[in-house]
Amino acid sequence: MIHIAILGFGVVGSGSAEVLTQNRELIAKHCGEEVNIKYILDLREFPDHPLGERVVHDIRVILDDPEVALVAEMMGGAHPAYDFTRAAIEAGKHVVTSNKEVVATFGVELLKLARKHHVSYLFEASVGGGIPIIRPLQTDLASNQILSVSGILNGTTNFILTKMEREGADFASALKEAQANGYAEANPAADVEGLDAARKIVILAALAFGVLLDPNKISTTGITGITKDHTAAARALGGAVKLIGHTRTVDGKVLAMVSPFFVPSQNPVSHVDGVFNGILVDANMLGRALFYGAGAGKLPTASAVVADIIDILSHRAEERSLPQWRTATAEEQTDASVLVCRHLFLIEGCAKCADKATKALRAEACVGVEGGRYALISAPMTAKEARDALSELTVVLTVPVLD
Amino acid sequence: MIHIAILGFGVVGSGSAEVLTQNRELIAKHCGEEVNIKYILDLREFPDHPLGERVVHDIRVILDDPEVALVAEMMGGAHPAYDFTRAAIEAGKHVVTSNKEVVATFGVELLKLARKHHVSYLFEASVGGGIPIIRPLQTDLASNQILSVSGILNGTTNFILTKMEREGADFASALKEAQANGYAEANPAADVEGLDAARKIVILAALAFGVLLDPNKISTTGITGITKDHTAAARALGGAVKLIGHTRTVDGKVLAMVSPFFVPSQNPVSHVDGVFNGILVDANMLGRALFYGAGAGKLPTASAVVADIIDILSHRAEERSLPQWRTATAEEQTDASVLVCRHLFLIEGCAKCADKATKALRAEACVGVEGGRYALISAPMTAKEARDALSELTVVLTVPVLD
Repeated sequence: MIHIAILGFGVVGSGSAEVLTQNRELIAKHCGEEVNIKYILDLREFPDHPLGERVVHDIRVILDDPEVALVAEMMGGAHPAYDFTRAAIEAGKHVVTSNKEVVATFGVELLKLARKHHVSYLFEASVGGGIPIIRPLQTDLASNQILSVSGILNGTTNFILTKMEREGADFASALKEAQANGYAEANPAADVEGLDAARKIVILAALAFGVLLDPNKISTTGITGITKDHTAAARALGGAVKLIGHTRTVDGKVLAMVSPFFVPSQNPVSHVDGVFNGILVDANMLGRALFYGAGAGKLPTASAVVADIIDILSHRAEERSLPQWRTATAEEQTDASVLVCRHLFLIEGCAKCADKATKALRAEACVGVEGGRYALISAPMTAKEARDALSELTVVLTVPVLD
Repeated sequence: MIHIAILGFGVVGSGSAEVLTQNRELIAKHCGEEVNIKYILDLREFPDHPLGERVVHDIRVILDDPEVALVAEMMGGAHPAYDFTRAAIEAGKHVVTSNKEVVATFGVELLKLARKHHVSYLFEASVGGGIPIIRPLQTDLASNQILSVSGILNGTTNFILTKMEREGADFASALKEAQANGYAEANPAADVEGLDAARKIVILAALAFGVLLDPNKISTTGITGITKDHTAAARALGGAVKLIGHTRTVDGKVLAMVSPFFVPSQNPVSHVDGVFNGILVDANMLGRALFYGAGAGKLPTASAVVADIIDILSHRAEERSLPQWRTATAEEQTDASVLVCRHLFLIEGCAKCADKATKALRAEACVGVEGGRYALISAPMTAKEARDALSELTVVLTVPVLD
C-alpha cells in the first residue's frame, strides 16, 4: 500500500478522493499496489465524509510521516499552497497540483527544488482541467518544435460568449446566467478579465519555449468589452469571437497574450462551445492538433490530478527528468504589439468608406452588417498598422484573427 | 550516440528520417545523446538521398549489430513486417511501428514477446497518424474507466464525405478528386470499405478494454453506399454523416464496429472535416475529450514514430510496463446488432406516413426533406427494433446516430 496526502478538500480535492475511491482497483493495477489517502489537510472538519477521520489541520503531521510518498496540493491561491509545496518537496515527497497560480508564479523555483530533492512535481490539472495537454506536449510532441499554442482556456468566459453568440444575450445577462449555473463566481473578475487564462497561457508558453513569463506582465484583455456588435460582425464573416490565450515566438522572443480573437469557422477552435476548453498546438512536424474537453469541474480536473499520481507512483524506480524552465528576462519577452495577424474590423459609414477601408486593409472580403455597417478582415499586419490604416474612418471595433 | 535502424523507406520511413534530421538537437536533448540512423532496410536503393549509403537489403545486418538499440518498422503490410518485428525483439531491440495491420493482427503476441525480452513495443503512429491518442489513453486517462471510443479514423473517407456534404458531389466524383489529390489510392477498397478504420478501432478497443478482436470479424460498413440522400437528410437535421469507428462494452462484451453514423452538430466530431481525424473518448471521470489533427501524411505520422523513439531512448534505464492484451474469445466479443442508440431515418410518403413513423420510432423531430421525404431521429433502440417499427413504410435509408 502506498500512502498519499491531499492538501485542500474543496471541489478538486474531494473530487480526487472520489476518483481514487471509485476507480480504486484500476488505479492499484497501474501502481502495482493500492493507493491510500492517509491524510487530508484542511482548515475545516468533514465529520460526515467517509474519509472525515483522516482530516488533519497541521501540515507537519504530513511532512513528518515518512510513509507519505506523495502530496496532492489542491488548495488554490498562492499561499500557503506554495509554502506547503516547498516543504513537501524538501521532505522528499512527490507533489502533484491543480494550482495554476503556484505553477505560473513559482514554477521555475519549484521544478528546480524538485530536481534537487530527486522527486517529481507534476501539474497536468493546472491547464485545461481534465484535458490531456501538458503530458502530450512533453511526450507526444517531444519530436517537434512547438510553433504556437492557442486555446480557449477558461470555461466561464466561453460559456458567456457562447450564450451571447447563440441567444443574442448581452454580456451582463450572460454573466448572470453563468453565475446562476455555478459556472462563474460571485466575483468573476479573474475569469472575465482574463487573468485565469493569462496564468494558463504562461504555463503553456513555458512548456513550449522553456521560459516562464510573469502572468501579470503579459498583454491581457478580457471579455467585459464584448458587445452584440462583436457577435454580429463574427456571424457576418462566418466564425465566432472567443477569448484566446495565445503564445508563439516572434524574432526569438516569447509572446504570450490573452485577448478576444475572431476565430473563423474553418479553425476547429471556433466550434469549442459552452464550458468546454480547446487547445490548438501548431508544431513543426505534426502540424495542428486540437485537444478538447472539460476544462474545469470536479471529476474532470480530479481525473488529471490522479493521472499525475499514477504516473509518479507507477514509475517510482526511475528519476523523472522534469522540465528545465528559466525565468524570462525582459529581453526574452515581448507583447501583443508585435503580433502580425489578420484583424477583424467593424466600421461605420457609406459604401465609399467600405471601399476605402477594403483598400487600406488589403481586405479579401467586406460584408455588410445590419445598421449600415461593414465587417472586414485585413491582410496580416500589426494592430498598430491596422489602426493607422483606418485613422480617417469610424471604427466600431477591432479584434485580431486566429487563423 | 544511440544507433537505430529504419525498416521501410517509403513515405513514413523517409519522413521519420526527416524529423530525426530536422529536429536533431531537440531530440538529442530529450534522449541525452544524439540519435543516429545507422541502417535503412529497403528493397530499393536511394543513391541520391543523403542517407543513401546507410541502405541495406538484409535484415540480418541489423539484427546482428549489437550497437542497434531500436528498430522503427514502417514497412506496412503483415509480412515480412511481422517477422522482422519478432526477430528484432528476440535480438533484444526495442521496436516502434506505424503498422496498424501488424498491431491489430499480432499485437497480443508481440507485446508478450517484448515483455519476455525486456524491450518496448510502441505504436502511437498506428492510429490517428500524428494525433496523440495511444499514449494519452495509457497515461492521462489511466485514472479512468474508458466507456467508449468513437472516431473519424480514416482521412480519405472523411475527405470524400466532406466533399459530398459541402459541394453536393456524388461518391464516385468525390473519390476521383481524392485520388487526384493523392488522398486515395488507385485501389481505394481498404479505405472506402472501412477495413483501415476497422484495424484502428480494434487497436483502440484493445487499449480501452484489454482484449484484441479480429479486425476481419467486426461489423464493418464503408461509405460506398452513401448518396446525396444521406447528405440531404443530415443537413435537414443539423449535422453530418461520418464514417465512425466505435467501441464500447455491452453487457460485459466488447463491441467494435465501423459504420457511417449521423453525427449531430453538438457533437464535436461533426466538425472534423476534410482529411483530418478526430477521436472522441468518453471516460467515467473525465467525461468526453476529443483528440483532433492530421490522421495521416508523411511528417505528422513520422512525428508520432519519433515521439515513440524518444520515449524509449529517454527511459532506457527503466523497464516499461507494456499493455497486457488478450485475444478476445467468441464470448467476449459482440457485434453492431446489440448497439442501442438513436437512428436517423429517411422515409418516403405522405404526411400521414410521417406521423405514423414519428410514433413508431418515438421520434423527437420529423423534418421535411425535398422530394416529399421526411427525416426522423428515433428514440434509442437497436437497429432491428428500428427496422421492425417501420416495416410498413418506405425507408430510403437508415444510419445510427453518434450522440
